[in-house]
Amino acid sequence: MATVTDTPIRIGVIGCAEIARTVSRAIDLAPNATIAAVASRSLEKAKTFATANGYKQSVKIHCSYESILEDPEVDALYIPLPTSLHVEWAVRAAESGKHILLEKPVAMNVAEFDKIVATCEKNGVQITDGTMWAHHPRTAKLKEFLFDSDRFGQLKNVHSSFSLAGDEDFLNNDIRVKPNLDGLGALGDLGWYAIRAALFANNFELPKIVAASPGTVLNESGVILSCAGKTDELQPYTFLANVAMEIAAVGTKGTLCVQDFVIPFEETQASFTTCTKAPFMNPWVNRPSEHTVKTEIPQEACMVREFARLVGEIKNKGAEPDGFWPNISRKTQLVVDAIKESVDKNCEQISLSGR
Amino acid sequence: MATVTDTPIRIGVIGCAEIARTVSRAIDLAPNATIAAVASRSLEKAKTFATANGYKQSVKIHCSYESILEDPEVDALYIPLPTSLHVEWAVRAAESGKHILLEKPVAMNVAEFDKIVATCEKNGVQITDGTMWAHHPRTAKLKEFLFDSDRFGQLKNVHSSFSLAGDEDFLNNDIRVKPNLDGLGALGDLGWYAIRAALFANNFELPKIVAASPGTVLNESGVILSCAGKTDELQPYTFLANVAMEIAAVGTKGTLCVQDFVIPFEETQASFTTCTKAPFMNPWVNRPSEHTVKTEIPQEACMVREFARLVGEIKNKGAEPDGFWPNISRKTQLVVDAIKESVDKNCEQISLSGR
Repeated sequence: MATVTDTPIRIGVIGCAEIARTVSRAIDLAPNATIAAVASRSLEKAKTFATANGYKQSVKIHCSYESILEDPEVDALYIPLPTSLHVEWAVRAAESGKHILLEKPVAMNVAEFDKIVATCEKNGVQITDGTMWAHHPRTAKLKEFLFDSDRFGQLKNVHSSFSLAGDEDFLNNDIRVKPNLDGLGALGDLGWYAIRAALFANNFELPKIVAASPGTVLNESGVILSCAGKTDELQPYTFLANVAMEIAAVGTKGTLCVQDFVIPFEETQASFTTCTKAPFMNPWVNRPSEHTVKTEIPQEACMVREFARLVGEIKNKGAEPDGFWPNISRKTQLVVDAIKESVDKNCEQISLSGR
Repeated sequence: MATVTDTPIRIGVIGCAEIARTVSRAIDLAPNATIAAVASRSLEKAKTFATANGYKQSVKIHCSYESILEDPEVDALYIPLPTSLHVEWAVRAAESGKHILLEKPVAMNVAEFDKIVATCEKNGVQITDGTMWAHHPRTAKLKEFLFDSDRFGQLKNVHSSFSLAGDEDFLNNDIRVKPNLDGLGALGDLGWYAIRAALFANNFELPKIVAASPGTVLNESGVILSCAGKTDELQPYTFLANVAMEIAAVGTKGTLCVQDFVIPFEETQASFTTCTKAPFMNPWVNRPSEHTVKTEIPQEACMVREFARLVGEIKNKGAEPDGFWPNISRKTQLVVDAIKESVDKNCEQISLSGR
């Protein structure tokens, strides 16, 4: 943890996306980070955004992305730009020595992400993706249960899903349905989480084979609005169904269920149920029990806190960047890519071996 | 419903299986049915079973299956015999004019079940399978929600699973792991329910293509201990994992979740959660709400009551047998067969068209 005497990590926000509102608040709430600057291609837009989000007067307004990269009073950049711009601006940020908190999906494909990571490594900067739920204290508890050989045993299957119903305006106008912006559509936006959840439950072991399930829905520009990936399990990700964000994992000895893994029902706490060693003939003598995990700050602020902690270790103590986060980003992106490939190839099975 | 003046339907129990204890109690609890007789190949076994289950002195004890078929004071037979014996004894029961409540899986394959149904039709007797949860009043409420175009919309995906952890004794000695008894193993025993649940959510429309998922576990006799079927969704059925019995259905407008669909946590009531029209940007302003459905009698007694009602209609009012129940039994068995075929053919895809 950051000690009280450490100076907060100074974060710049590059681009004024909707999600940047949530993360701006998270930076405010994280005890070891502060918003130092914001950049937009339009000065007006940046100013409006700063005001709307209650930024202090001291926050610098940049009217170009280049300019925030050169700001010596910015340690790290939060990059919520459309996915298609990630590779350019993340590479340039790393070249400028800025640590990077990168929105998901991290890139349009793994080749792009590998370029980003290589530049980060070369420049000794941290990269972490914007998967908020990974940082909720509940997630640590889920992990504890999933890897408890006595309470959960060995994973047999895990179902994960993420759907949200886009309204007409969203389905016509959101950047997540535009091929030149967030061109991975529902797969990149929602699939990212369900895929990450399955990887998480599998201790980040990649599936051997991946395929898309028949029934993908594309919009007229060819962007995925709804699809489902098959690994050992099937994961639906769709903009065309009512909300679902479930992890249901079944092990030889235990069962885990989370109904709201991406966004907890409440900001200050989150729950899950577990059941262990239910007898065959009368399983409900061991009824599922509910566990609630409180969090001092929302999960997105936990994410910023963890990112700022890692940056602080590097900046103040000469530590190496932590390879865990880019590694799991890459694995998630690999699976996204393979499902996209399968969608494009009429649900052909795609082998991940050697990737 | 049976009126109070109707004589209860007299049910004979053929075979003293473990499950017959539960159903004996259910017959007792059903207001329109009564246990009239029990048969075992061993007189001693039948007597012990009758005593252990508190049968009245008036219940006739038969020491052969043939003998109970000829009993004129038996209207209907409950057949919990091992699956491999279903075709023989269900056909003989129908030929003897007995209505049939047949344990699941209904047969070793659809060809056998078709023989049974043909004989029932020829003899004008009712056949209903032993899928208890289908008769719980909760299930009617689930159906109401799933087919509500405003609250649920159109089904996008449904996940169903059923696992129970067999202990060493079960895995070595239970009839459900013996090839010559309940030779369909976990597929016939647990898969039956998960398959039925998926069919139920799909308004009993058969999937076009079915396949087994890689990773089937067989015992040394070749009986399935663990497998998973893929239709549009994947359904795990396994004796090798902790309890899970979930239906998670996602529609364009609504989401449904049931955690205990096969055996409710409690006998007198059962719950499920629904969520409707969650907004994309802030879905949990519509948090899932829990619904609880009370039942006067346990679901297995509801099953007996429905069966006895149908038998009463035929016996007392000259009605035709109800084709709904054998029709959905057949569909369930069709999917079981196709998954078994895929297991035997190294996960090959099996088309159900024309079956």
